[in-house]
Amino acid sequence: MKTLIWNNLSDEQKQQALTRPAVSASGDIKRAVEAILDSVTTDGDTALFALSEKFDRVKLDSLTVSKQQIEQATTRIPAELKQAIQNAKRNIAAFHQAQKPQAVDLETQTGVRCQVVTRPINRVGLYIPGGSAPLFSTVLMLAIPAKIAGCKKVILCSPPPIADEILYTANLCGIETIYAVGGAQAVAAMAIGTESVTKVDKIFGPGNAFVTEAKRQVSQLTHGAAIDMPAGPSEVLVLADEFADPDFVASDLLSQAEHGADSQVILVTPSEKLAAETALAIERQLTALPRAETARKALAHSRTFIAQDLQQCIAISNEYAPEHLVVQVENARELLPHLDNAGSIFLGAYSPESMGDYASGTNHVLPTYGYTRTYSSLGLADFSKRMTVQELTPQGFKDLAKTVELMASAEQLDAHKQAVSIRLAKLGSC
Amino acid sequence: MKTLIWNNLSDEQKQQALTRPAVSASGDIKRAVEAILDSVTTDGDTALFALSEKFDRVKLDSLTVSKQQIEQATTRIPAELKQAIQNAKRNIAAFHQAQKPQAVDLETQTGVRCQVVTRPINRVGLYIPGGSAPLFSTVLMLAIPAKIAGCKKVILCSPPPIADEILYTANLCGIETIYAVGGAQAVAAMAIGTESVTKVDKIFGPGNAFVTEAKRQVSQLTHGAAIDMPAGPSEVLVLADEFADPDFVASDLLSQAEHGADSQVILVTPSEKLAAETALAIERQLTALPRAETARKALAHSRTFIAQDLQQCIAISNEYAPEHLVVQVENARELLPHLDNAGSIFLGAYSPESMGDYASGTNHVLPTYGYTRTYSSLGLADFSKRMTVQELTPQGFKDLAKTVELMASAEQLDAHKQAVSIRLAKLGSC
Repeated sequence: MKTLIWNNLSDEQKQQALTRPAVSASGDIKRAVEAILDSVTTDGDTALFALSEKFDRVKLDSLTVSKQQIEQATTRIPAELKQAIQNAKRNIAAFHQAQKPQAVDLETQTGVRCQVVTRPINRVGLYIPGGSAPLFSTVLMLAIPAKIAGCKKVILCSPPPIADEILYTANLCGIETIYAVGGAQAVAAMAIGTESVTKVDKIFGPGNAFVTEAKRQVSQLTHGAAIDMPAGPSEVLVLADEFADPDFVASDLLSQAEHGADSQVILVTPSEKLAAETALAIERQLTALPRAETARKALAHSRTFIAQDLQQCIAISNEYAPEHLVVQVENARELLPHLDNAGSIFLGAYSPESMGDYASGTNHVLPTYGYTRTYSSLGLADFSKRMTVQELTPQGFKDLAKTVELMASAEQLDAHKQAVSIRLAKLGSC
Repeated sequence: MKTLIWNNLSDEQKQQALTRPAVSASGDIKRAVEAILDSVTTDGDTALFALSEKFDRVKLDSLTVSKQQIEQATTRIPAELKQAIQNAKRNIAAFHQAQKPQAVDLETQTGVRCQVVTRPINRVGLYIPGGSAPLFSTVLMLAIPAKIAGCKKVILCSPPPIADEILYTANLCGIETIYAVGGAQAVAAMAIGTESVTKVDKIFGPGNAFVTEAKRQVSQLTHGAAIDMPAGPSEVLVLADEFADPDFVASDLLSQAEHGADSQVILVTPSEKLAAETALAIERQLTALPRAETARKALAHSRTFIAQDLQQCIAISNEYAPEHLVVQVENARELLPHLDNAGSIFLGAYSPESMGDYASGTNHVLPTYGYTRTYSSLGLADFSKRMTVQELTPQGFKDLAKTVELMASAEQLDAHKQAVSIRLAKLGSC
């Protein structure tokens, strides 16, 4: 990790040091995804079978995973892992259940009742990537809020062959239909619909560059699907002072670095001593890690910033706007009111990122790439939408009529005014 | 308006009858907007001055509206219109104030504290279109929630010359900086930043095809700006039964139709009598309207659906997913639990759309074009973002450690596991 003294940097250098590398999809990926979207639109299931054979080298009989396959997968999961998944599910459910919206229902003036009512999004599609490590924890993070929100149709796509853990977890969370289809073609199928795959209203979940590009493209289609949030590489910023344990700090930086060579890992500290000790601890811990090579690549472009004090650390963090923000300082909670751009915040020595990644209860689907400035941590609200309602009594209407007539007139919207005047006239003649 | 008996339509005809016309921007508009974005990126204010001269035929000395201009505008507004705007502001503020999020703060298990905390989006930009009718009501709808949410920087752009009503309303709502710049160049300036115009994190507000395309484009830029929601033509669906007053129904359909030739206007009713009487009432009312020609164009492609009963009316409305849903039936509130895709709902005879457009308190910035299936009515939440927070006590950590170790192992993320194990070891050795 490169160490930089914040106050020694020019404004331009500061900005550059916090700038993330460009990640927009190449023209090749864009065109490949366009072709896949066209193919799924035209040929439906046939395209899905062909693309699975081409990209996943799997020849499928059916796109839909059978009950029997799920039952068999379940029997193969060790009992203690099942228990762990159930523990995590309980905490995640408790946290998302607590996000049920309050009723908003008031008279803004006498006889003018206004409400916000919340409805689940009808049909949602969850995408879970394949690969060597089965990301069943992401199944929990997507399926639990979808079910608590009350989405009527919850489907899941994952590339074949789907890992036992994913099938078990999806079934545990009550997902009705699981499709063995992955990549851009899965996103296309969920956005457009095929003979087998239900068209959904919104698509959630992480994926590789093709999946990300496909989500972007379907979100721009006129009759496509909404998506959870824009995507970028995963990131952590650890904000630590001289009271932090360098071993803990190192372990948190490494658990981000192992995600991929493009992971962003940043340490911000007022303590040069802590920075130096953390660097040593990273080297020690790396030796034990199977993914050491990946982590080293991520660390090669990562940075440690030495700040003049905690206040400057906070300013750097708010400016960078990290996905994960780990705060290991003497009184971590005291910093919270000042932290304003982050996806999820981990307060204190015993709140490593891993806890939130799996089981504390918070959602691990978070905005990356600086999007925490405007986007929210995934939550129950993302599986619902808010409608407003108003109901006026005749007297409430009368009291507000002149206000609306004057405003409509001033905006030269005479039919808007007439809708009021006609009613006023009837009320007068009653 | 074309009248169709719902049950006489084939499935395909039903789908077609509810399909909105395509509205995606032409290649010409896309390229023109790209050129404007490039120009503002390269030349900043100079580009804005040049583009204002070209498109708005105004030669400006300054992009920023002065205090003096605002004061002068204020003196020119009639007192009773000022009072009307203030009445509307009071109701809109009350409704959005009531949307302040509840605290989510719980122990998901002993020693594992999880929270949702909400922060305002730092810098927001509001766009208000120009043209013959000054849309000052939209200033209320954007500025009031921005200020209640606590956004630190709230700027507003509108094409020159800016109407007095817009300047007065913006100032009334506490907007610090108003720029006399419009069109795609205004959106570009807010997303990218220029010498005069502050770069913002998120852009809100309606506009013409160029503005809409510019919002779309900046929302796709890596360091661009988020936007409020995708846009489409305005729409109303009136759901009425034989107890409805045909004059009221007609006036609500017309207040949508006058917005533009591309407005969507739909009547759904189980009563052929009401449909026929409404058609007559529309003709009567049209004669009094200055915008009759525009309204006629919108009505030409509008439809009345005769349904077999109220239940079918509800199904049609939910399928169409209208921006505005006016419910004029005997017991309107009884329908509410069954209505699930709409931007804003107007219950009963004395709740015309105009009331919500101006002054009931609800927001008139709503998803159109079927986006109500996934997007929400604009509200306080759109000016804020949610972060999650977790804090574990050493005991809370210990209790959850095995769960996380097992899950991280199963996902082959060893550094994630190590971040737990290292802490466990220290706790054990304490």
